Amino acid sequence: MPVERNATNWCGWGWAASRYDFHGRRDAFLGWLGGRLGVDVGAVHTPPVDPDSIQLPGIRLSDADLADLATAAGGPDALQRDARSRLMHAMGRSLPDLLRLRRGQVSCAPDAVVLPGDAGAVAAVLRLCRERDWAVVPFGGGSSVVGGVEACDPRGRPVVCLDVTRMDRLVSLDPQDRTATFQAGVYGPDLEAALGARGFMLGHYPQSFEFSTLGGWIAARSSGQQSNQYGDIADLLVSCRVVTPQGELRTWNGPVSAAGPDLDMVIAGSEGTLGVIVDATVRIHPKPATYQIKAVLFPDFARGTAALSMIVGAGLRMSYLRLSDEVETATYLKMGGGGRAKELGLSALGVFGFKDQRCVALVGAEGDPRDVEHDMLAALAICRKHGGLSLGGSPARNWHRDRYLHPYMRDDLLDAGIAVETHETAVPWSRVQAVRDEVRQALNDALAAQGRKVHVMAHLSHSYPTGTCIYFILMYAVDPDDPMAQWRPIKASICDAVARHGGTISHHHGVGLDHKPWLVREKGELGLRLLRALRREVDPSSILNPGKLVD
Amino acid sequence: MPVERNATNWCGWGWAASRYDFHGRRDAFLGWLGGRLGVDVGAVHTPPVDPDSIQLPGIRLSDADLADLATAAGGPDALQRDARSRLMHAMGRSLPDLLRLRRGQVSCAPDAVVLPGDAGAVAAVLRLCRERDWAVVPFGGGSSVVGGVEACDPRGRPVVCLDVTRMDRLVSLDPQDRTATFQAGVYGPDLEAALGARGFMLGHYPQSFEFSTLGGWIAARSSGQQSNQYGDIADLLVSCRVVTPQGELRTWNGPVSAAGPDLDMVIAGSEGTLGVIVDATVRIHPKPATYQIKAVLFPDFARGTAALSMIVGAGLRMSYLRLSDEVETATYLKMGGGGRAKELGLSALGVFGFKDQRCVALVGAEGDPRDVEHDMLAALAICRKHGGLSLGGSPARNWHRDRYLHPYMRDDLLDAGIAVETHETAVPWSRVQAVRDEVRQALNDALAAQGRKVHVMAHLSHSYPTGTCIYFILMYAVDPDDPMAQWRPIKASICDAVARHGGTISHHHGVGLDHKPWLVREKGELGLRLLRALRREVDPSSILNPGKLVD
Repeated sequence: MPVERNATNWCGWGWAASRYDFHGRRDAFLGWLGGRLGVDVGAVHTPPVDPDSIQLPGIRLSDADLADLATAAGGPDALQRDARSRLMHAMGRSLPDLLRLRRGQVSCAPDAVVLPGDAGAVAAVLRLCRERDWAVVPFGGGSSVVGGVEACDPRGRPVVCLDVTRMDRLVSLDPQDRTATFQAGVYGPDLEAALGARGFMLGHYPQSFEFSTLGGWIAARSSGQQSNQYGDIADLLVSCRVVTPQGELRTWNGPVSAAGPDLDMVIAGSEGTLGVIVDATVRIHPKPATYQIKAVLFPDFARGTAALSMIVGAGLRMSYLRLSDEVETATYLKMGGGGRAKELGLSALGVFGFKDQRCVALVGAEGDPRDVEHDMLAALAICRKHGGLSLGGSPARNWHRDRYLHPYMRDDLLDAGIAVETHETAVPWSRVQAVRDEVRQALNDALAAQGRKVHVMAHLSHSYPTGTCIYFILMYAVDPDDPMAQWRPIKASICDAVARHGGTISHHHGVGLDHKPWLVREKGELGLRLLRALRREVDPSSILNPGKLVD
Repeated sequence: MPVERNATNWCGWGWAASRYDFHGRRDAFLGWLGGRLGVDVGAVHTPPVDPDSIQLPGIRLSDADLADLATAAGGPDALQRDARSRLMHAMGRSLPDLLRLRRGQVSCAPDAVVLPGDAGAVAAVLRLCRERDWAVVPFGGGSSVVGGVEACDPRGRPVVCLDVTRMDRLVSLDPQDRTATFQAGVYGPDLEAALGARGFMLGHYPQSFEFSTLGGWIAARSSGQQSNQYGDIADLLVSCRVVTPQGELRTWNGPVSAAGPDLDMVIAGSEGTLGVIVDATVRIHPKPATYQIKAVLFPDFARGTAALSMIVGAGLRMSYLRLSDEVETATYLKMGGGGRAKELGLSALGVFGFKDQRCVALVGAEGDPRDVEHDMLAALAICRKHGGLSLGGSPARNWHRDRYLHPYMRDDLLDAGIAVETHETAVPWSRVQAVRDEVRQALNDALAAQGRKVHVMAHLSHSYPTGTCIYFILMYAVDPDDPMAQWRPIKASICDAVARHGGTISHHHGVGLDHKPWLVREKGELGLRLLRALRREVDPSSILNPGKLVD
């Protein structure tokens, strides 16, 4: 069952009916956060506008155009032109998206939404759009946080949103080859359920898991919370089928090939600019027989970082490996994430040298019981060598239980005038501390220039032998006069700091509109030319997701 | 120290002074092989011609051209125009290369060889070649077995061979990030020695290890014998710097990025058609504290294959995993590879059901002693479940000792009129038996059409959770009248059989000239268009390695 979009929050995260509960300690947390930011959080109430009051841009397609489009997509049911559907497909779920939606500032919306049911219908839609020179924005769960699905065209052409979520079937599963082929519009839970019924799993759990699709994961080069064990989506991708304006591309379906450049690695990260991913073959894994997950407290971030580096460097098979810095650790405890009792327990640890710099890590393994036992013992021994103290499984299980709930916090805090922004990068291990500190400093400076304070948390979310992903979460009081004008220099300050240190502009969120100005720092001019050459070859009139990734 | 080319075999493998010794049983083996092929091997003696008698094509560059080229490359010492140097850079080391060289049939040779010492000189050479419209063939160790470095240009332009082996320094090593940057012309042994002096290793051991370079490994998407543990070169590659006719490309240097398509995976496998790789950053590994390697005998190929599939599927950390089929197992024993005593021991195993179908596997692990012990126990338990019987470490160590020597056998057998050809592919696990059987049948048919027999061995050399590499070695009596005309349908019969079953045209040898006709079966027409678009962007006049990979 695809997600029913009308049951989701039109201007925020996830299900319309869900909220983050702060473990019953919302007021206490908001008071604490307000103190950090120097604002009276309780005095502000900035709810979103009534969505029915929003004036969308007019539809630029004629009734005849729309009829042709419906026919191409598979019939009248495969086209939506109502205001609510257009609004739900107008943009993604980044902070600037939320800031604009909540205020009813929707300057771009698709002229129509099509929902093709198979690859043939996708090809027919692309053919029509190419003939008529309409832009096409491929759209899965619509959970992009980088402006990756914004229904706009820099050239001002009509925009058709191509929603792939009706293509959500399991096509085939081969237990011997440990691969499964799905249509690309399948959402995370449906994909895992289909595999689970056969005793398998994919093991890809991005925070957007419930509201994002296989095709979106590939297009944006997503990573899941258990990527240490199962790999990022680029590792899980075996083969894909992509409909382009110049015909269909099917990449080779097999383990490893030396026959020229790897076209799967060209499609992964192409963000809808090279075609519409219609199906994909992915590696699957037998469901693990057992798992262990433990929280470990480190005296400081540097020692926790060193432990993670050693664990992945030793080739230990970890399914969870995550380290919060001292600010995130303190914040998490304030939010009640660790439980009241645990907070008190941790406070007492001060006497053992675990003071304000303490950092909590999650360390987990899953699979064969003997392998799990062996690797967890080895990993915890490394943690101990770096001053880590096991807190047992309970705080880790709390985190695991809440792992898809945190994004809801954004909407609640926006009601109280607090913006929550995220940004992630990846860097070699040797640059972790410098990048973490510089981004924090850059943010302090950027907010200070506005006469405000910022609360900056960081965690290491995905680790590799050569480096790690640093994930920043920042909170600041929204400027009620012009939140977008306020946001831009904040975003730029992070991106500049990251680029200065050679970090990637994105480890797993993608480029979209928001990161595009920084892409040249990472790819170089010639690298961008290569990407443009690919784009030109399959899409000479640049109808596919125009304005995103590269021009 | 780069390899001194004049100390290598001008028409065969490796050092001119080295030979395969057949463990003193050459005559017995040749007699046995002759029996299998139905020929009197002892009656044939077809040594190579005298290299000094070979008439190379004339040099098409003027003295002034050559002087300009030398200046661009860094001075008079950076240019070679003598016949021996041109001969040594004329082609690679495939069977057709050997067949032609040994008979003195060298229809293409570079007009000059340049040996630039740094990236600036490489850029200057490319600039000059672009201005004058001369073809450029990047050349490392020259060990290609697919026609990847043939000094020819389909358009008939002069050809400059760009030998990168003077660029062979370790640029930097970061122990914390577990990466090292080398100039791309470094040979395997020099690279491992430089890392070894710091306690590290790369872990990439293709059979060509002694005679191939880092840049060549990347350009051809090479795999090493311990890739199960350390990854293929594409996995080991972190970043690279490529000089193209349109300027320099430096890929991002860090662990993982979602910022668009992965350009490293475009350069890996580009076979010199997108530029000259001048340096590369690779993942490195601490030298393992210990290793274990054991030979295991399976009752038949199917059960051995199933065991390998289960071992990699379970995520066990194996540094060696290799399975010979029944023909290769029998041949290896005949060649004395297992030792005479072992052969007798194995024969006795017939009474336990290990008859003609018996297949030997190598199973090894290296690293931390506790991890090695744990994973070896688990792997051997899987082997036992599939009927595997451990033969202990001695046969495995024999194989390891000889692992770089086998290619020398080709030259010795060619002297006796026997051709040794290799071909490898990768397929999902479910297709291993069918592809193995069909290739064997296709070869039997192809040779039968010539009134001959063929001896076909196969082994699984690199395994992944989703599939494996099947490596074929075939032996047949050379047609003394026209060995190339004989070879072509043999090669085609393998490639057609592999392509029919969806196997890749190459798991780790590459495409070059020899596999090019089959590439479209794997990449599709649109895939080839994407590769051509990349090529056109960096090299509009197609001067780089013309005729290879794609046109």
